[in-house]
Amino acid sequence: MKYVITIGREYGSGGRFIGKKVADTLGIPFYDNELITEACKDSGLSPAVFETFDEKTDGFFSGAGMYSYDISLSQKVFLAQFDAIKKIADKESCVIVGRCADYVLRDVPNVCNIFICAPMEEKIKRAVEFYGLNPEKAASQIIKKDKKRKGYYNFYTDLDWGKASNYDLCINSKLGIDNCVNVIVNFVKERFNLE
Amino acid sequence: MKYVITIGREYGSGGRFIGKKVADTLGIPFYDNELITEACKDSGLSPAVFETFDEKTDGFFSGAGMYSYDISLSQKVFLAQFDAIKKIADKESCVIVGRCADYVLRDVPNVCNIFICAPMEEKIKRAVEFYGLNPEKAASQIIKKDKKRKGYYNFYTDLDWGKASNYDLCINSKLGIDNCVNVIVNFVKERFNLE
Repeated sequence: MKYVITIGREYGSGGRFIGKKVADTLGIPFYDNELITEACKDSGLSPAVFETFDEKTDGFFSGAGMYSYDISLSQKVFLAQFDAIKKIADKESCVIVGRCADYVLRDVPNVCNIFICAPMEEKIKRAVEFYGLNPEKAASQIIKKDKKRKGYYNFYTDLDWGKASNYDLCINSKLGIDNCVNVIVNFVKERFNLE
Repeated sequence: MKYVITIGREYGSGGRFIGKKVADTLGIPFYDNELITEACKDSGLSPAVFETFDEKTDGFFSGAGMYSYDISLSQKVFLAQFDAIKKIADKESCVIVGRCADYVLRDVPNVCNIFICAPMEEKIKRAVEFYGLNPEKAASQIIKKDKKRKGYYNFYTDLDWGKASNYDLCINSKLGIDNCVNVIVNFVKERFNLE
């Protein structure tokens, strides 16, 4: 049976890493940056445009610093990813991280939507260790990054990012990465009646 | 090892029922209405006061329809339950539903906080079947009840009811009651290293 797991995540929660491990455990493909490449193929937009405008909506909210052709490009990137996500989900079972995949696939059967969060002190630790953030500035940078994710999500969907009732399962990664993977895999098996 | 599971839940989500089944599966006590009785014992307040003011804060938000001695009684009920929850959590492993137990026990080790939600159509079905709500008025009544729960929770805590990052695990009961119980029990075992 074909099924899709979408993962939304707070910055520094380990959500991407957990998603990759869940995909590996279930033996299905994982899409994150790969998705951008996939989207580029059919859209006619250059990879540089994707790098610049991926999951960005600054101009929509700040009201400054982004010209109208930039906004148009942001939307083109979103729409190209929208199409790519639909094609991927149509083709095979997979895990897709970010990019409003839950909303894009809202009318597709056998999709389950997961959100991963973490306490601020653990997000700081992870962001410093894995993304090289300055320990003193990490907290404010994490808040800013999540504000952008929330803005991007709430702009393109009619839902509220990080609100429990939007998702099938939300898990706090303070449980530990491998424990989270176990809980999610168990959840997916219950959800889709996998052995 | 002693551990406590707190459960917050949307009205009609089946959260109370799931909590009871989780407690039964784990072989630990379950506290909901029992908690009120427990709280009454030491507080000197009559059971009638508890019935009237339990998880109610109307006056705080409507600004009308409740006199100051009512507000004072609401707070006394809250504080009596606060003490009772602390005593119960100190005594034994258990499941506690509602009443801001997650907030009351925020500094206690080995507590995990779970939130249970459900799609509106399933909450209506359940509220009509189990609580006898009028099918035509059920949706607005459910919204009102959850607004009160959110108000009660947000008033007494510095947290936001139903926001994923406040909890260790949030689960949508559209998965099915028994499947939810399995996922939660699995989660609790991962969390507390139970066999």
